[in-house]
Amino acid sequence: MTGIYLVAITAEAMSGALAAGRRNMDIFGVAVIAFVTALGGGTIRDVMLGRFPIGWTQHPEYVYLVIGAGLLTTAIAFLMHNLKRLFLLLDAMGLVAFSLIGCGVALGMGYPTVVVIMSGMITGICGGILRDVLCNQVPVVFRRELYASVSLATCALFLGLHHLGLGTNLNTAISFAAGLALRLLAIRGAWRLPVFSYRQRWD
Amino acid sequence: MTGIYLVAITAEAMSGALAAGRRNMDIFGVAVIAFVTALGGGTIRDVMLGRFPIGWTQHPEYVYLVIGAGLLTTAIAFLMHNLKRLFLLLDAMGLVAFSLIGCGVALGMGYPTVVVIMSGMITGICGGILRDVLCNQVPVVFRRELYASVSLATCALFLGLHHLGLGTNLNTAISFAAGLALRLLAIRGAWRLPVFSYRQRWD
Amino acid sequence: MTGIYLVAITAEAMSGALAAGRRNMDIFGVAVIAFVTALGGGTIRDVMLGRFPIGWTQHPEYVYLVIGAGLLTTAIAFLMHNLKRLFLLLDAMGLVAFSLIGCGVALGMGYPTVVVIMSGMITGICGGILRDVLCNQVPVVFRRELYASVSLATCALFLGLHHLGLGTNLNTAISFAAGLALRLLAIRGAWRLPVFSYRQRWD
Repeated sequence: MTGIYLVAITAEAMSGALAAGRRNMDIFGVAVIAFVTALGGGTIRDVMLGRFPIGWTQHPEYVYLVIGAGLLTTAIAFLMHNLKRLFLLLDAMGLVAFSLIGCGVALGMGYPTVVVIMSGMITGICGGILRDVLCNQVPVVFRRELYASVSLATCALFLGLHHLGLGTNLNTAISFAAGLALRLLAIRGAWRLPVFSYRQRWD
Repeated sequence: MTGIYLVAITAEAMSGALAAGRRNMDIFGVAVIAFVTALGGGTIRDVMLGRFPIGWTQHPEYVYLVIGAGLLTTAIAFLMHNLKRLFLLLDAMGLVAFSLIGCGVALGMGYPTVVVIMSGMITGICGGILRDVLCNQVPVVFRRELYASVSLATCALFLGLHHLGLGTNLNTAISFAAGLALRLLAIRGAWRLPVFSYRQRWD
Repeated sequence: MTGIYLVAITAEAMSGALAAGRRNMDIFGVAVIAFVTALGGGTIRDVMLGRFPIGWTQHPEYVYLVIGAGLLTTAIAFLMHNLKRLFLLLDAMGLVAFSLIGCGVALGMGYPTVVVIMSGMITGICGGILRDVLCNQVPVVFRRELYASVSLATCALFLGLHHLGLGTNLNTAISFAAGLALRLLAIRGAWRLPVFSYRQRWD
């Protein structure tokens, strides 16, 4: 899982760097957005759960990794368009891995079921939400094809199998594979949740 | 107070859902914005005061309630315009109830006066601020007719009566009634604070 | 350092008030933005480091100072354009002082080097980032002439001298002077970091 986690934060950092580039930020802004996108979800989760010290403060190597990945992205950005498929795959792996890690953390702290699921989702998607708020746009996660729903489904499956007594390693492997498959199918089929549109302004 | 609190978080969740609908979010986005609007203020307060575990993590039923209310809103949105008056009343009750709850929490932890008042205001208005930031607009609370000021006045009254030795139950009832009356008068009269406009850009 | 700190939070509060004025906020919004700009960086740092109670909750006088400075700014805004040079100087002093204070806090808590530097930078620049997010614009700190870089350089110098065994008082004085000089030179020369622009949208 650690290996997948490292791939995931690298992929998230690169997506953050590209978003910063779309806003013409300087390289410092690129480093910050890369950091926030990759490690922001876990940070919010730790604060929500009252889990101090926060994860990355005990792992300086993660900080170097994500900032390095962000800056490297500025050098190889011209290649990124061709790497679209690889990138989506890494991003999907990251989403599912983050979600499972978040579930595991809250489960280990004895939180109730709904909090365990939210912990997984916060870890999975909050980095991307922070990235979009800092880049001044409505978070794509609220509008894109099944993304947060994949996180939710992965967490629910993991928790369900956990309550059925499945061992953690096997459970993680199954949930990871199922979540990844769902995400890739959603991308291929451009599946979307129903949209709620409301026009009237009266407040 | 618990009954009023439940009404309040339901009303806030519905206002969040309508805001999400104005941005054409999918139903997941609706659920997130409903959750953040209803429970975000209390969350920020708990983090600011170092009060862990955070309130809603110990009350899964609140999470189900606000997400349910948000999703229900998408089904009955066509009715909402006709419910405007009811909605403003519920929202006003929520503002005042949240403010008093926030004061009570900080008071019980022994914080100084200004922190007690800020705790009440954070609880009362931060949910709406988060909602607006996630929907990518300048928070209306900074520009609308007396809203935050009602929170401030309610907190100050509560704290004043508390220092005069009034019992908590009677104090809460009086402060609630006074705050609610002030808010409803402000809506009826469209009272506003003076606005500060500054044009020059030089930084 | 305390004297410089008080000057710094006052200057930051005034910059927040002017930003609020550009968005036509009411005086309550001005007070909030002034507060967040001046004390938000230290708040985020304390939460990240798990340092409770948060600084300003133990110093009510800081809260009064920054809110007072924010409101005063609305009265003397017509003068501000003429005070531009003074204002930039105070802001530069604040940036450097905040950074050194943030380093000192994390160092005292035994965090690793990269966290100490990030603690300094968070303290130095997050207030301005929050201000810009609440005013619905891309944070200028990600695009302006050397600003965050000054914070980084100041923190790195302080930490380097600290590891060389220099006493804290002398170290602070040297780092403060060097950081301030760098910032003023950057303003005079309009130095900027390279910008990363990326056009393609494919996610």
